[in-house]
Amino acid sequence: MGIDEWFMQMALDIARVSVGQTSPNPNVGAVVVKDGRVVGQGAHLYAGGPHAEVHALRMAGEGAQGATIYVTLEPCNHHGRTPPCTEAIIAAGIRRVVIASVDHDPRTAHGGISRLQDAGLDVTVGILEEQANRMNRVFFHRIDTGRPLVVYKAATTLSGHVAANSGHSRYVTGDAARADVQRMRLEHPSIAVGVQTVLADDPRLTVRGEDGAASERQPVRVVFDSVLRTPTNAAMFREPGQTLILSTAEGVASRPHEADKLRATAGVEVVAITATDGRINLVEAMQFLGARGFNSMLLEGGPTLAASFFAERLVDEVRMYVAPKLLANGLPALQGVETSDMGQAIRLSNAVWQQIGEDLRLDATVLYTDEAVFRGSR
Amino acid sequence: MGIDEWFMQMALDIARVSVGQTSPNPNVGAVVVKDGRVVGQGAHLYAGGPHAEVHALRMAGEGAQGATIYVTLEPCNHHGRTPPCTEAIIAAGIRRVVIASVDHDPRTAHGGISRLQDAGLDVTVGILEEQANRMNRVFFHRIDTGRPLVVYKAATTLSGHVAANSGHSRYVTGDAARADVQRMRLEHPSIAVGVQTVLADDPRLTVRGEDGAASERQPVRVVFDSVLRTPTNAAMFREPGQTLILSTAEGVASRPHEADKLRATAGVEVVAITATDGRINLVEAMQFLGARGFNSMLLEGGPTLAASFFAERLVDEVRMYVAPKLLANGLPALQGVETSDMGQAIRLSNAVWQQIGEDLRLDATVLYTDEAVFRGSR
Repeated sequence: MGIDEWFMQMALDIARVSVGQTSPNPNVGAVVVKDGRVVGQGAHLYAGGPHAEVHALRMAGEGAQGATIYVTLEPCNHHGRTPPCTEAIIAAGIRRVVIASVDHDPRTAHGGISRLQDAGLDVTVGILEEQANRMNRVFFHRIDTGRPLVVYKAATTLSGHVAANSGHSRYVTGDAARADVQRMRLEHPSIAVGVQTVLADDPRLTVRGEDGAASERQPVRVVFDSVLRTPTNAAMFREPGQTLILSTAEGVASRPHEADKLRATAGVEVVAITATDGRINLVEAMQFLGARGFNSMLLEGGPTLAASFFAERLVDEVRMYVAPKLLANGLPALQGVETSDMGQAIRLSNAVWQQIGEDLRLDATVLYTDEAVFRGSR
Repeated sequence: MGIDEWFMQMALDIARVSVGQTSPNPNVGAVVVKDGRVVGQGAHLYAGGPHAEVHALRMAGEGAQGATIYVTLEPCNHHGRTPPCTEAIIAAGIRRVVIASVDHDPRTAHGGISRLQDAGLDVTVGILEEQANRMNRVFFHRIDTGRPLVVYKAATTLSGHVAANSGHSRYVTGDAARADVQRMRLEHPSIAVGVQTVLADDPRLTVRGEDGAASERQPVRVVFDSVLRTPTNAAMFREPGQTLILSTAEGVASRPHEADKLRATAGVEVVAITATDGRINLVEAMQFLGARGFNSMLLEGGPTLAASFFAERLVDEVRMYVAPKLLANGLPALQGVETSDMGQAIRLSNAVWQQIGEDLRLDATVLYTDEAVFRGSR
């Protein structure tokens, strides 16, 4: 690892503080180095706030003159809510710019680099690019596809059950894994469940610490509810955070009284999405959420909703927890169409297994092949 | 690790060569050391063959005079098919005996140690005892309970499926995991399936190398078949190895022609086990197999047979493989009674996870608690 990598690693570490809270913006970290000494550092913290470069340059002050700035993402070159970072870098007297990832945003992509080079600055691109691309993948995904990156999360027994047949599921995994889930939820700006889960469990869907205290910041709850069955007195409405109920025009029209009452509830929004066969068209729903600026969404089920997401090839990654226990019988994680061949399985790649307490955690990327059959009904 | 541990580790390593082929006897290794030099070593290889100590002493010859012998299990003190090893050790002039585990066999338990001490030999007990007990656990289990130790093996997708809904299951896991299963099968003197598996898949149930060649030694196939539905032309009958069909008196009486034909088939034996509610009483079946001298049995399913084994608390350990793939729907590993509470799960302890190729392997001990509910029907 060279010296450029050392400082870029710092910038990546700094960027991490705001994972989950920058949508629709990316996570970016910046470090200003003068004569081998860090003279400024910053991260983009939330949309509307200064970009990482601006924070770092402000901290550096006069020290930015002739310095090098390390930025995890190509500096922006357009006027958004804030002026272009390229101009701020040039104005501060920076001599060299080291960039990890090239931006995918068409307003900047390579334009930031060109502007800096045109102004006579020395620009190096691609330092720790893989790590930076991994951090930026949720932002790039939304920019590239118009949809949030979807991470499917489930906790199952080794026998493949997420609950007893009765629906009882407290708890599949141990304390450590459950605490891990809470932390992970804050890494996503939105978290989704099907209305069946709301009806069955009346979950609070609130990120809480191990002491039970709710985080002040909460991901937006997204409820997939084609025929608008979400109860107007759902427990989650009494929790901090916003709720977005995705339904259909027919669903809203069929229950006008409930729709009005839900819409009158503080923090609740009801949106009609295009329907296909009476159900929410999931691709349309994800395009809507992408347009709303959500870079990622954590999909927590239930089994039919999750299977439908896989059927539409909308799940990008999985985070699964497997508990070393066996149930004689119970509810499966996924409930899609019946299968005829093991080759119809969806494969997971880049699997990273990690033991958490007694349980096992898997992070992996979903690999859709032509053989994979996953059509489900919801 | 002291010097005694070094040599005992050698004896344990030597004992491993015959795992799976010594039933009803244990696996035992022995090393004779004179003046710090190994002058003899041996393992008990198969029932009726010399014990480990005898092999090692023969190899040592005159070198055994005044030497130390390291034995993984207390030397036998009774006349079985061979004379007592204690006498052979004394006659060879051994001065010191180092033992890992005390035998559970009531004909020897502590008697071997006493005999050696009475003859004036220096006896040390308990060196690497935990490792030796782990190796001897299958033998001790049969001695202690009268039943083979049962290891449940399954290979599932991460969605908990052992096959597509059609029953198609080739293949759940990758090449490396499947090769691992073949090797493991040779570590058990018997391997069991339910008749439903025979009817559905017509499996060969034969241990094969990666080149497809069948091992000359094969575990005895045990088919649980309450009403004697095993086809007389089952594929496994054309394979090397013996087959034991466990049925009931009613099952055999209801299909006398098939029973006769099966019994006339080379390598096939049909045994009527006590029935409970028309089904094989599994505890009786395991007592029968224990009396036959099987130290262990690998239980490969299907789902209802496996659930019944868990319900009767007859499964001692599990070996599970989990493939990083998801099926929309499929057949579960276990098909027992419906459950109402996650606390009814059977917990697994001493979990050892290991990645094999892209798949994950789990070895664990089954921990039955009062809450665990697992009654199944077969």
